[in-house]
Amino acid sequence: MSAEEVTPEQAAREEELVRVVTESFAGTPDPRLREITQAAVRHLHAFLRDVRLTEDEWTRGIGFLTAVGDITDERRQEFVLLSDTLGASMQTIAINNQAYADATEATVFGPFFVEGSPHVELGGDTAGGAPGEPCWVEGTVRDTDGAPVAGARIEVWEADADGFYDVQHDDGRTTGRAHLFSDDDGGFRFWAVTPTPYPIPHDGPVGAMLAATGRSPMRASHLHFMVTAVGLRTLVTHIFVRGDELLASDSVFGVKDSLVKDFEAQPAGTPTPDGRDLAGSTWSRTRFDIVLAPAG
Amino acid sequence: MSAEEVTPEQAAREEELVRVVTESFAGTPDPRLREITQAAVRHLHAFLRDVRLTEDEWTRGIGFLTAVGDITDERRQEFVLLSDTLGASMQTIAINNQAYADATEATVFGPFFVEGSPHVELGGDTAGGAPGEPCWVEGTVRDTDGAPVAGARIEVWEADADGFYDVQHDDGRTTGRAHLFSDDDGGFRFWAVTPTPYPIPHDGPVGAMLAATGRSPMRASHLHFMVTAVGLRTLVTHIFVRGDELLASDSVFGVKDSLVKDFEAQPAGTPTPDGRDLAGSTWSRTRFDIVLAPAG
Repeated sequence: MSAEEVTPEQAAREEELVRVVTESFAGTPDPRLREITQAAVRHLHAFLRDVRLTEDEWTRGIGFLTAVGDITDERRQEFVLLSDTLGASMQTIAINNQAYADATEATVFGPFFVEGSPHVELGGDTAGGAPGEPCWVEGTVRDTDGAPVAGARIEVWEADADGFYDVQHDDGRTTGRAHLFSDDDGGFRFWAVTPTPYPIPHDGPVGAMLAATGRSPMRASHLHFMVTAVGLRTLVTHIFVRGDELLASDSVFGVKDSLVKDFEAQPAGTPTPDGRDLAGSTWSRTRFDIVLAPAG
Repeated sequence: MSAEEVTPEQAAREEELVRVVTESFAGTPDPRLREITQAAVRHLHAFLRDVRLTEDEWTRGIGFLTAVGDITDERRQEFVLLSDTLGASMQTIAINNQAYADATEATVFGPFFVEGSPHVELGGDTAGGAPGEPCWVEGTVRDTDGAPVAGARIEVWEADADGFYDVQHDDGRTTGRAHLFSDDDGGFRFWAVTPTPYPIPHDGPVGAMLAATGRSPMRASHLHFMVTAVGLRTLVTHIFVRGDELLASDSVFGVKDSLVKDFEAQPAGTPTPDGRDLAGSTWSRTRFDIVLAPAG
């Protein structure tokens, strides 16, 4: 039955149910929770009524969410992946980004951050043995007044050249992730691997959803950053590789123009900034100057 | 930040993201899946923008859904419970009920149906030892032309007087559920236990949601029916007990006026319809005449 064929009496019955359900949340003591739950009810019911969801489709929807729950564990967060692929994660970031217009833009956190990464010194190697082409990354951390931020904690993490984060390997390795601290001038520099494209995990229900809707699971090449400093807003972001053909079709809608950076290809034998001997390998270099917003 | 403070530039950015995400589903081969996924994106993003969801709230939302997934297993379906308590199950039933206006009304399926219930003869006892006051239930199954439906399969299930379905006990018992078949005149009759109020399972995340929003987990007293017959639409419904003070605040919004029935209290010693000796117990009796819609 299409929405056009809904009689006024039927519409009234459906609207009355929305009213009754919304009203059942009217006694919520916390006003913000009341606002969120009542809005969730309104939008959920509007969706059901808009598409005239059938009972079979409801059953399949419950089955989909159950499958998302089944595959989720401490190492796999399929609900985050679902939020990411529906653009809900990026929309939440967009909603909360307005007040920080002068600061570096944020993007999705993703499901692969792990607490307790290894510490490396400035100029150290965050790859930890991850396969991939070496990449020299340098930049500064400043506040919105342009003052250098010393001692900012910079967490970086990325997929290896095979398209996997360390936690997706089943051997317990810790690679492609580390943290370091900015120097007294706000500067930082480290070795990583040149980012390469990879698919989000697509062997689960979110992958099935992407396949059924003709969407690609591929993410544009990127390197994750999380930067924290006292008195400043924590920044969760990526940098992307200019020229990557996936920039316009990133599966989690994470690309922002300001985060696309030049990764300059360096022929084999080009001297490295810190004299590191790359044994004849090609390498790349990029720069990321970070501006942190005030906290709160 | 309230919605009133959103600048036109900010609104445009958010709307552009909705457009990009919706467009990403444009290549969905199945037109109905395309319609559903694009509508889900629109309503989900409208919710996020309407409440200006914070990143902390997003994290808590992901945590809530993860907890719903964690507690769900073969015997506990917390996603169904969530749909029920948000009125989404009843709205789906309402949406699909319009075409069956002359037929008996449907209500929520609930999470406690189990395949493979015991068969009882007409007049038999569906309680199977469940604690509770005996209740005689009788009625007929007819189609919308008034013709008796012989051989309709009638599944009934209910909580016991302690407020639990058999599957909520951990001893593997099968009580308070059975199936029987209507006779050549469409008639049926059986013993059950008089329905009593009980809480939906509220030791999980849905229970925490109800507690945080000041809602009761109690369901109005009811007896579940699922009636199937060849060529007719399967009916999933309950009957409720007239006079139950929970009729107006049922935690899953399942009550419909047409499903509220008189359960006539019978003093101890009142002769039973089939001569069953109830050893001096009080009992009750009710009548439920069922009309099944045409299939398809």
